[in-house]
Amino acid sequence: MFQINEHYQALPGSYLFSTIAAKVAAYTNANPDKQVIRLGIGDVTQPIAPAVIEALHQAVDEMADASTFHGYAPDLGYAFLRSAIVQNDYRPRGCEIREDEIFISDGAKSDSGNIQEIFDTRCKVAVTDPVYPVYIDANAMAGRCGTYDTVTQTWSNVIYMPCVRENGFVPDFPKEEPDLIYLCIPNNPTGTTITKAQLQGWVDYANKIGAVILYDAAYESYITEPDVPHSIYECEGARTCAIEIRSFSKNAGFTGLRLGFTVVPKDLVCGTVSLHAMWARRHGTKYNGAPYIIQRAGEAVYTEEGKAQLQEQVAYYMRNAGLIKKGLQDAGYEVFGGVNAPYIWMKTPGTMGSWEFFDDLLERAQVVGTPGAGFGPSGEGYFRLTAFGSYENTAAALQRIRAL
Amino acid sequence: MFQINEHYQALPGSYLFSTIAAKVAAYTNANPDKQVIRLGIGDVTQPIAPAVIEALHQAVDEMADASTFHGYAPDLGYAFLRSAIVQNDYRPRGCEIREDEIFISDGAKSDSGNIQEIFDTRCKVAVTDPVYPVYIDANAMAGRCGTYDTVTQTWSNVIYMPCVRENGFVPDFPKEEPDLIYLCIPNNPTGTTITKAQLQGWVDYANKIGAVILYDAAYESYITEPDVPHSIYECEGARTCAIEIRSFSKNAGFTGLRLGFTVVPKDLVCGTVSLHAMWARRHGTKYNGAPYIIQRAGEAVYTEEGKAQLQEQVAYYMRNAGLIKKGLQDAGYEVFGGVNAPYIWMKTPGTMGSWEFFDDLLERAQVVGTPGAGFGPSGEGYFRLTAFGSYENTAAALQRIRAL
Repeated sequence: MFQINEHYQALPGSYLFSTIAAKVAAYTNANPDKQVIRLGIGDVTQPIAPAVIEALHQAVDEMADASTFHGYAPDLGYAFLRSAIVQNDYRPRGCEIREDEIFISDGAKSDSGNIQEIFDTRCKVAVTDPVYPVYIDANAMAGRCGTYDTVTQTWSNVIYMPCVRENGFVPDFPKEEPDLIYLCIPNNPTGTTITKAQLQGWVDYANKIGAVILYDAAYESYITEPDVPHSIYECEGARTCAIEIRSFSKNAGFTGLRLGFTVVPKDLVCGTVSLHAMWARRHGTKYNGAPYIIQRAGEAVYTEEGKAQLQEQVAYYMRNAGLIKKGLQDAGYEVFGGVNAPYIWMKTPGTMGSWEFFDDLLERAQVVGTPGAGFGPSGEGYFRLTAFGSYENTAAALQRIRAL
Repeated sequence: MFQINEHYQALPGSYLFSTIAAKVAAYTNANPDKQVIRLGIGDVTQPIAPAVIEALHQAVDEMADASTFHGYAPDLGYAFLRSAIVQNDYRPRGCEIREDEIFISDGAKSDSGNIQEIFDTRCKVAVTDPVYPVYIDANAMAGRCGTYDTVTQTWSNVIYMPCVRENGFVPDFPKEEPDLIYLCIPNNPTGTTITKAQLQGWVDYANKIGAVILYDAAYESYITEPDVPHSIYECEGARTCAIEIRSFSKNAGFTGLRLGFTVVPKDLVCGTVSLHAMWARRHGTKYNGAPYIIQRAGEAVYTEEGKAQLQEQVAYYMRNAGLIKKGLQDAGYEVFGGVNAPYIWMKTPGTMGSWEFFDDLLERAQVVGTPGAGFGPSGEGYFRLTAFGSYENTAAALQRIRAL
C-alpha cells in the first residue's frame, strides 16, 4: 500500500492569498455595488513593453517555419539570453559571473521552491521574519521545518530572524547557526533593504560558518539608492557561499510570461561536490527549459529600446509607491519601504492586528492589502500595500484611506 | 556547515543523451566532410501548426494592452484550456474526468519528475525495463532507489519489469508488491503498446494491492489501432489508482513551447488524504503556471482547424515510422513498434551490443540512433530510431542502412 509524503500534512491549512481571495469574494458578493481596489498581491498591471512584444511576434514566426523552428532548448537556457544577462546584470557591476553559471528557468517561484532539493533534509533553515511563504513551505514539504505551532504561527525547526521597526528591518545574525539562509533584498514584503556593507557582513558570516545564502533579488530593478546592492556577487566572497535567484516578473512585467534565472557559481562546493553540477543535474532531469519565444522576450528586455521602456515602467510603479507612502504618512500612519522596492509596509494603528486592519480597510474603504501577519509572526501589526496597481486605482485607494 | 542531498551522489555519471551528443561531436570533428543524420532524440522537427501560430500572435497582442494583459495565471491553469481538454481528450472517450482535476504545467518531463514528491520516500517504485530515465532518476534523487550497480546497471531498490521480445513487450505483474508503478503507453522507448483489456488488468491489480499508477500518455495521439487505450481513465476503477500525465510536445510539436498537464482524480486518496489536494499544494507553492500565451496555443490545438492540421503532422511522422519499419525489415532486421508510436525498436544483429551497434551505424552509415541499453538492462541488444526527423532525412538514413 502506497504512503504519502507526510510532511505535507504538517502544512497549515490555507495559503495567505487564498484566504484573502475568499474574504474579498465574500465581501463583493454581499456588496455588489461597491468597487473594490486591490493593492494586495504583487502582480503587475502594466502591459508588456513594445520591444518585448516585437521580439515575441518575431519568435512566434520563427516557430512557424521548419528552417527556424526550435524544439527542446539547451539545458541551461539559450546562450543569447545567458550572455545578455552577464553583460547587463553582472559585468557592469563588477560581478565575476560567467554565462555557464546561469540557469534559465520559468521563474523565481519555481527556483525558490526547488533549490532546497539539492541540500540535505537535515539542513537548518533561517529566514527573515516576515518572509515570502514559498521559502518555508518548500522546506516544510521536504521535512526540514519540524512541526507548525498554530498559536505562535512558527515552525519548531526554523530559525526566524525578525525584521521589525526596532532593528530598522535589518536582520541580526541568529544565535543558532543556520545551514541555509534565505535573504530577499530588497525585501518582500517589507519593501526595506540593507546596504552593501551590511550584505558583505552576511557573506562573511556565511563563509565563516559554512552556510549557503539563497539570495532572492527579484526586486533589484526598483533600487534607487546608490549604497544598496543589486546582486550579492557585488560582495567579496559571495562566489563561495551564495546562490542568487532573479526574476523577469517585476522589472519587465513577466508574471504571465514566466521567466527567471538562478546563478550557481562554480566555486560553491561541499567538500569535492559542486552545487553547480547538482543543480545542472536537477535542471536536466526534472525540467525542460523555458519556451524559446519567452527566452527571446527575455533577451529583448536587455536591448537599448527594451531597457528604456522598462525603466519607464518601473518609474510608473515607483510613482505609485511614492503616492502610497506620502498618502499614508499624511493620514498619520507610520510607513516603511517604498524607496527601493514596490512595496509599502505600514504599522497598523494602535494595537490593531493585521487581519483586523485588513477587514476594516475592506469594509470601510474597499481597499485590499495584505495582512503582515500572513508573512510570519513578526509581521503582526503591519500591513503591506503594493505599487503594482494602475496610477488611477492607486490614487483612488489613497483618497479613500485618507478620508477614513 | 551545510550538507548536500547525498542521494544525488548515487546517480550514475552522465545522462544518456549527453553521452550520445559527445560521441557524435567526436565523430563529426574527426570527419567534417561526413553528413550525419540524427534519428536519436525524440525531438520534433515540423513547425508549429498555423492555427496555433495564429493563437500565439493573438495572445501576444493581448499582452501588449493593459485592458487585455494577463499576469499570474490561475493555479490549476486557465479554465479555457482545462475545459478544451475535458471536452476533447476525455468526454468523447467516456472518461469521467472533470476540469478541476486537470493541472496545466510546462510539460510532461517536469510533472514526471515532480509527481513522486507527494509520496513517502519509502514507497517502492516499479518501472518497465527499458524505461524513460526521468522516472528513475527523479526517484533516485529522493532516495527511493537504493544504490546503483554499474555492472548490472540496476538500482538495488527498484522493481524492474522487463519488456522484451519474449513477452511481446507487455510487462508481467511483479513478484514483489510495488507502491508506485510507472507505465508509459504507448511506450517510450520501445514504441510498443498494450490493449485496453491488458491495461484494465493493471488497474485492477493496482486497486487490489493499493498501488498508484503513474501513467504517461505522451504518445497517445500516435495510436492507430482501435483496441489500444488513449487514456487510463478508459478503464474502470482508474479514478482510485491512477494519475495521468500528458504532453503537447509530440501531438502538437510543443517541445520548444512547453505545455503539458497532469490529471489527479479526486477519488485518489490515502486514508482521508486527497492526492489532488497535495498536488494542488505542490503546484501552488513551487510553480507559477504555464505562460498565458502558451496556454492559448494549447487551446488552439483543440480547434477544428488545429485538430486537422495536427492530424496531418502526426501522419507525417507516422509515414516516417512506416518507412523506417519497412526499410529495416527489408534489410533483414527484427523490428518492433512504429504502429501506435513514433518509435521503432529494433533488435541488433546477432549478439551485437546496443552501443556497439550505435558506433557501427555512426561509423558506417552516419546515422545516429539511441542504444537500447541506455534505457535499462533489458534494452541491451536493442536500438531505437525515431520518426521525428524530416521525411527526406529519414529516407536518406534508411537508404544508407539498407546499403550496408
